[in-house]
Amino acid sequence: MRVALAQINTTVGDIWGNVEKAVDTLENVVSSGADIVAFPELTITGYPPEDLLLRPDFIEDNLKALEEFAARVPEGVVAAVGFVDLAGDLYNSCALVSGGRVLHRYHKHYLPNYGVFDENRYFREGEGAFVLRTDGALVGVSVCEDIWYPGGPAREQALAGAGVLLNISASPYSRQKGVFRERMLGVRASDYGCYVLFCNLVGGQDELVFDGHSVAIDPGGRLLARAKQFQEDLLLVELHPEEALIHRLHDPRPRKESPSKSLQIVDAEFRREDSTPPEPYEHRIEPLLPEEGEVFDALVLGLRDYFRKNGFSRAVLGLSGGIDSSLSAVVAARALGPENVTGVLLPSRYTSKGSNTDALALAKNLGIDVQEIAIEPAFGAYREMLEGAFKGLPEDVAEENIQSRIRGNVLMALSNKFGWIVLSTGNKSEMSVGYSTLYGDSAGGFAVIKDVPKTLVYRICRHINEREGREIVPDSVLTKEPSAELRADQRDTDSLPPYDVLDPILEAYIEEDKGVGEIVASGYDEEDVRRVVRLVDAAEYKRRQVPIGIKVTSRAFGRDRRMPITNRYRERRPKL
Amino acid sequence: MRVALAQINTTVGDIWGNVEKAVDTLENVVSSGADIVAFPELTITGYPPEDLLLRPDFIEDNLKALEEFAARVPEGVVAAVGFVDLAGDLYNSCALVSGGRVLHRYHKHYLPNYGVFDENRYFREGEGAFVLRTDGALVGVSVCEDIWYPGGPAREQALAGAGVLLNISASPYSRQKGVFRERMLGVRASDYGCYVLFCNLVGGQDELVFDGHSVAIDPGGRLLARAKQFQEDLLLVELHPEEALIHRLHDPRPRKESPSKSLQIVDAEFRREDSTPPEPYEHRIEPLLPEEGEVFDALVLGLRDYFRKNGFSRAVLGLSGGIDSSLSAVVAARALGPENVTGVLLPSRYTSKGSNTDALALAKNLGIDVQEIAIEPAFGAYREMLEGAFKGLPEDVAEENIQSRIRGNVLMALSNKFGWIVLSTGNKSEMSVGYSTLYGDSAGGFAVIKDVPKTLVYRICRHINEREGREIVPDSVLTKEPSAELRADQRDTDSLPPYDVLDPILEAYIEEDKGVGEIVASGYDEEDVRRVVRLVDAAEYKRRQVPIGIKVTSRAFGRDRRMPITNRYRERRPKL
Repeated sequence: MRVALAQINTTVGDIWGNVEKAVDTLENVVSSGADIVAFPELTITGYPPEDLLLRPDFIEDNLKALEEFAARVPEGVVAAVGFVDLAGDLYNSCALVSGGRVLHRYHKHYLPNYGVFDENRYFREGEGAFVLRTDGALVGVSVCEDIWYPGGPAREQALAGAGVLLNISASPYSRQKGVFRERMLGVRASDYGCYVLFCNLVGGQDELVFDGHSVAIDPGGRLLARAKQFQEDLLLVELHPEEALIHRLHDPRPRKESPSKSLQIVDAEFRREDSTPPEPYEHRIEPLLPEEGEVFDALVLGLRDYFRKNGFSRAVLGLSGGIDSSLSAVVAARALGPENVTGVLLPSRYTSKGSNTDALALAKNLGIDVQEIAIEPAFGAYREMLEGAFKGLPEDVAEENIQSRIRGNVLMALSNKFGWIVLSTGNKSEMSVGYSTLYGDSAGGFAVIKDVPKTLVYRICRHINEREGREIVPDSVLTKEPSAELRADQRDTDSLPPYDVLDPILEAYIEEDKGVGEIVASGYDEEDVRRVVRLVDAAEYKRRQVPIGIKVTSRAFGRDRRMPITNRYRERRPKL
Repeated sequence: MRVALAQINTTVGDIWGNVEKAVDTLENVVSSGADIVAFPELTITGYPPEDLLLRPDFIEDNLKALEEFAARVPEGVVAAVGFVDLAGDLYNSCALVSGGRVLHRYHKHYLPNYGVFDENRYFREGEGAFVLRTDGALVGVSVCEDIWYPGGPAREQALAGAGVLLNISASPYSRQKGVFRERMLGVRASDYGCYVLFCNLVGGQDELVFDGHSVAIDPGGRLLARAKQFQEDLLLVELHPEEALIHRLHDPRPRKESPSKSLQIVDAEFRREDSTPPEPYEHRIEPLLPEEGEVFDALVLGLRDYFRKNGFSRAVLGLSGGIDSSLSAVVAARALGPENVTGVLLPSRYTSKGSNTDALALAKNLGIDVQEIAIEPAFGAYREMLEGAFKGLPEDVAEENIQSRIRGNVLMALSNKFGWIVLSTGNKSEMSVGYSTLYGDSAGGFAVIKDVPKTLVYRICRHINEREGREIVPDSVLTKEPSAELRADQRDTDSLPPYDVLDPILEAYIEEDKGVGEIVASGYDEEDVRRVVRLVDAAEYKRRQVPIGIKVTSRAFGRDRRMPITNRYRERRPKL
């Protein structure tokens, strides 16, 4: 039995475009001799469609598109394609299609409603498992979250004798999640003595990147094949269902448990004469990227897809000579092509000479266009305009922010005039503690590295230089002390702990939801921890107004971490 | 039996403050002779606590606070108080407390996960109904969503003979929802032949306003008592459980159905000797506000609580002489006191004389402070700075937006210097079609009228003038044609249909999720509808970066309408 895992890049809402892409893939696959071809979860609507699912016209169009797709599936091949079924209520579904007909509509059982997921908002939970019977082999099909439950429909299917468990997914990326997923799937395969085939979505959708990384696992739990990360791919796997039987005979754990009696059997026929006969097949195992490369590729794909899927082509960003705008520019040049990126130097009276030199060197290394617009005239004008209102008061953060907002205004003016999208360049550490200016450096259409902690920003830049074997990010950017340069002799460490102390505190508080006491107990200075926690809490209102950016950690701001702005929960107070 | 519905204004996260408030209320209530006192849903944590519920320290503190609260409840009185129970898993719960002990912990059965609600993200569904037995009467207690289900725990309790159904709620406000709620509760009461007592939260929490409006309904479905809308209140009701029996004997519908056998009975004793004996009681029925007054009061409460609960006191906003900034200023003056509001006139070369006069008249009517800062110097500076980049190109929206962003920058500078919070003043119609400048007029900490459609803005302003019996919003503001004044002779209708056409189209598309075809069929010009729908879709990225503001319609942007930015769903395309 030959199965194709079609890891395609769908677009939310682009119902007809998604179907066209699936049909194109199908034609390739059929000629490769596949019996089954699997597409990612919600193939037809894209994932996640969010509140489009509350629109009757959208649901209807998706159902029509399924019919159109089904009409293109020849006899002898089964396609597993994700769609939204309307059967009294709405279901996240997988259609099994063959010979122009929908053989079965499977309704996802387990609806994730945590982290970035809101599936209980839209769907009813499905009931009843089924297996596909083909040439005497039983294939269990499930959708994404279903396989994350040890007691879910995949178990039912395995107990009923399925030798192959196929799962269509839209599992979003976060750091090292692919490894975690492979491990889980390996355990499912060996627990049940089944092949496990996992077909994941690839592509960027707003804050999320789906990393592809589809895999096939053998009944012993060993990796059989792995598709590319962060790219469209078609993974062909050759299965021998009798392998599953051999494992079943040697590891009879499934025998001790009874399958549910209501399991439905859906028959499908494979007709080999219509396709190239299968040949002995060398399985492809793509290498895994190192962590820095993985995050970098996620950023590139996320940014590229945001532009492509929204019809944008050119980007503009401020280049300060610092590490954050440097990495953002590198990502942009890679994602959009250097010819589509303009860097703008926006020097003020506080900008060091080194900053300008570094920014120019970076632009040269990347081959991107550069402009320089000094912000002094506007700064002078604002001071004049505010002279009356600010009379007798010392300079403070107000004047610092004015400079940052002038930069935001200039970049937005270029955006409005030329149709370029402004990229904002703040990292997660800054975003966490509010070390940024609303409508200033945070202004833009997309915040490229907003979920990348500062220490990881450094690691990724070094990784890029190593990988390219030359200096892309200038060495002086990597070694100089970080500064916002909004007043004389300013340093980030004037108001923040050093980043190698800050980042672990932030990770404990934000990603792990630990309290002050616990963080201090793990070895951090109490004063530092309290200060950081206060800053994080107080910056929530800022985070609500910044552009979206790509989730790369286990807990990104946005749809992943949903904190109230109005929130009086602080340290524990004495009792009444 | 005397029951007190304690409609208090809790604060999210302020665990100890909420308990103090409940204890203070309890002391008043006991002296009034109440047997039962009910507090709103999640009294202790505030509602909705969002991802604070993922923090173990927060859950623990809430449990400690429940113990502290319980210690203050005397013998002979039962308090129903909302908290988060941790019993293997997390539950949205109501504790029945008496004589220093928790008699029972009820776990909410039905978790809303639609609209603004995300309760499946945090809680497990409760199981098993119970009734409180007191002096021979049975009282069923449930939490919020439970009573919205005709077949939920309230039905179980009624079938088991409960004559009183008490529901503690956090039901957020939207236009006319209070009337809808009263009708539903009236039908529950008459369906079951029970008293229905509904105790709702009051207060603002970020985007949400809880409107109070607690009610008591008699077993015939008639309104017995109604608490104030948008204010803290304590509603005392005197019940005669034998009334319920009389209704039960005359309308024996509940007799035809069997209660579940597992219903738990929790005994509680009322000791009248500890409290003032009940007297014949005249029930209070607060009048309902007219729609315009209701929305206005929601805005005032929402803004006031956002400031108070976040520790802010003063606001600043730009006064353009238009109707939106006028209404925003009226709300601010009412919510914060005129002495805490500064209006800033920010005239440009395009500002008409009438605009300045109108803005000054409004400020005078309200008694708020006024400043004037002309934006020409900065506009000139930007033009000079951008001369090279813009060489040879005609003026367009870029220059318009620069002006708007200068205003945003000036207001933010005042905010940074003086600690004032900037109020942005865009209405829902503008927010829908993207007729605003990001980081310009949309800049601020709170967007007062962002969910108020333009036609309703007019109605509310007229209502205020009528109610006050004098001109608060100057008449010329109400009658002149709306304009952004960002170029010569600009009018809103240059780029938008008139508001009395635009608003119904927006309501159909945004609040009702109707498609183009359906909207056209209801009598609108197809060209208009297509254009409006395109504008709404294209403005999603802007709406993600604007400040929060108060939900007053059935579908507000924000946590209520969650659309992807990347969304290629447009009009229906021909089939493949």
